Amino acid sequence: MLPFASITIIGLGLIGSSIAHGVKASMPTARITGYDADPSVRARVQELGFCDDVADSAGAAVIDADLVLLCVPVGAMAAIAADMAEDLPEDAIISDVGSSKGNVIASLQAALPRARIIPAHPVAGTEHSGPDAGFATLFNDRWCILTPPDDAQEGDIERVRAFWEKLGANIEIMDAKHHDLVLAVTSHLPHLIAYTIVGTASDLEDVTRSEVIKYSAGGFRDFTRIAASDPTMWRDVFMSNKDAVLEMLQRFSEDLTALQRAIRWDKGDELFDLFTKTRAIRRRIIEEGQDDAAPDFGRSHE
Amino acid sequence: MLPFASITIIGLGLIGSSIAHGVKASMPTARITGYDADPSVRARVQELGFCDDVADSAGAAVIDADLVLLCVPVGAMAAIAADMAEDLPEDAIISDVGSSKGNVIASLQAALPRARIIPAHPVAGTEHSGPDAGFATLFNDRWCILTPPDDAQEGDIERVRAFWEKLGANIEIMDAKHHDLVLAVTSHLPHLIAYTIVGTASDLEDVTRSEVIKYSAGGFRDFTRIAASDPTMWRDVFMSNKDAVLEMLQRFSEDLTALQRAIRWDKGDELFDLFTKTRAIRRRIIEEGQDDAAPDFGRSHE
Ligand SMILES: NC(=O)c1ccc[n+]([C@@H]2O[C@H](COP(=O)([O-])OP(=O)(O)OC[C@H]3O[C@@H](n4cnc5c(N)ncnc54)[C@H](OP(=O)(O)O)[C@@H]3O)[C@@H](O)[C@H]2O)c1
Ligand SMILES: NC(=O)c1ccc[n+]([C@@H]2O[C@H](COP(=O)([O-])OP(=O)(O)OC[C@H]3O[C@@H](n4cnc5c(N)ncnc54)[C@H](OP(=O)(O)O)[C@@H]3O)[C@@H](O)[C@H]2O)c1
Repeated sequence: MLPFASITIIGLGLIGSSIAHGVKASMPTARITGYDADPSVRARVQELGFCDDVADSAGAAVIDADLVLLCVPVGAMAAIAADMAEDLPEDAIISDVGSSKGNVIASLQAALPRARIIPAHPVAGTEHSGPDAGFATLFNDRWCILTPPDDAQEGDIERVRAFWEKLGANIEIMDAKHHDLVLAVTSHLPHLIAYTIVGTASDLEDVTRSEVIKYSAGGFRDFTRIAASDPTMWRDVFMSNKDAVLEMLQRFSEDLTALQRAIRWDKGDELFDLFTKTRAIRRRIIEEGQDDAAPDFGRSHE
Repeated sequence: MLPFASITIIGLGLIGSSIAHGVKASMPTARITGYDADPSVRARVQELGFCDDVADSAGAAVIDADLVLLCVPVGAMAAIAADMAEDLPEDAIISDVGSSKGNVIASLQAALPRARIIPAHPVAGTEHSGPDAGFATLFNDRWCILTPPDDAQEGDIERVRAFWEKLGANIEIMDAKHHDLVLAVTSHLPHLIAYTIVGTASDLEDVTRSEVIKYSAGGFRDFTRIAASDPTMWRDVFMSNKDAVLEMLQRFSEDLTALQRAIRWDKGDELFDLFTKTRAIRRRIIEEGQDDAAPDFGRSHE
């Protein structure tokens, strides 16, 4: 049995379109209705054909839904929830895929005080965005974190779990506050640092931008992938998970200062010890199937 | 005509063995002699068969060479040069592949005052090391930077250029000081930052190491690849390119502080502007063939 028969996806970018492709592949009889604020996205989705129906407003999109998935930038969640409040069926479950949770839950609860809200965050993505970027296997073997509020019903949680499992994800449940701290370190801080270093490298006087690009295979290019991610999405993430991000940033800065001192005072042993320790983490990530074991991410060297 | 007929490679790890494989593929009649300080590496290289000869000492390895390539960590360059000083043929060219150049050149010139020194740095690598990690195509379409000293002979530079071109590399010539500044930003700073964040993430109290590993697909895992690189090699790079690394680190820290303030004071526009600018660099890296255009580095999502 399908966990949901009529699924509405609001926001048809990378995540929204990947969910739609995944539903088509694993739950082919479910009906998908889509909506996006951007008319050109809606037109493109019609062409791509991964929704059964593309609605002209958020309200029209949700009217028959038993699952509504908000796949818009986290800063847009409050507005879109307010938009659909009047039309949301009483027994529909409302979920989202936002990269931060505490703030999003508060917005959804404020706009939809009687709704059955089960927030989720699939920890999977690429640096691309928009409706052409999605693909059905994005969530395969990735974790999807559910952060149900205290008053959520067990049955609702189980249905959302079943939905994500059908898309290939593994499920973990945690409270929103802890989610926001964990993701601050495994996702938000890495993005912030990548954006910073790419900015630093493009603003030097003694090294030209062409040189930075030419010799980027020394390591820099890895950071540019992350720093090519969607600006709106990431602005919203940093603003909405501000406290946890600032805390992690503070720790990172302290550690960087310690390393700076070690270099300045020729403390090779300190460097060596840190560089040895960090290898072990990579090994475990590969063992647990969270990255490719092939050297250089499996990039082609032909 | 081959640029060199008898090539000695000292240090048979990732770079040394990749050069040997490349020579076998593109200059099959050249003779390769190898040497490594580690007896187990020498034994393994005998088994792998990519050297015609594996010598028992640096001196014995260089005695018939017309090109000697030092492929050891940059901190070991001075000692290995001193070791072979008595046996180096007068007309041999000596080169290296060290990731920093100013310091290495000074060491080589001090140990081998009359030698014909043409330093090089192939900007290519993976996070793996040792003699099993090498492969012939590592240098394909990557840049190799030559940093010849002022008194180098034009003919010697051209022979080393021809050698690297046969391995598939594109050649650029610059002075050592500029090289060290450019690579500080495109390679050394990215490694330092990656090592730092992986260290930060493994030392948290409120987020467990298992959680960091589990949710690493949010961006963190990209950094762990770089932070899995060889600790000896990288300790040596930071110690030997200290001034340029500290300068770049200083700039990075200032930029990070600015971003931190923008988050603290909810300056979304500042974030958005930076995040938009950094996308352009990624685009140019891909256009110039320095990275894979496929999303997520072309990682498999099956
Ligand atoms: N990308 C990732 O790696 C990743 C991973 C996990 C979770 N997430 C989360 O997933 C969500 C979507 O991210 P994404 O990567 O899919 O972004 P995306 O590709 O940029 O797609 C977002 C879509 O939402 C539309 N939109 C924006 N505001 C809207 C509104 N008020 N009403 C309806 N549609 C609206 C956008 O239209 P416009 O064309 O007008 O912008 C865009 O088409 C975000 O909350 C993000 O935090 C992302
Ligand atoms: N990896 C990269 O991405 C990359 C890219 C461009 C340039 N480089 C440069 O290439 C050089 C080699 O790096 P790699 O990645 O090939 O390292 P690697 O895989 O660790 O290989 C280095 C080899 O040199 C040996 N060695 C160390 N000290 C020696 C000595 N005094 N005499 C003889 N052999 C000695 C090591 O033996 P042990 O087993 O005893 O350590 C090891 O087998 C470094 O200077 C590095 O900066 C590296």
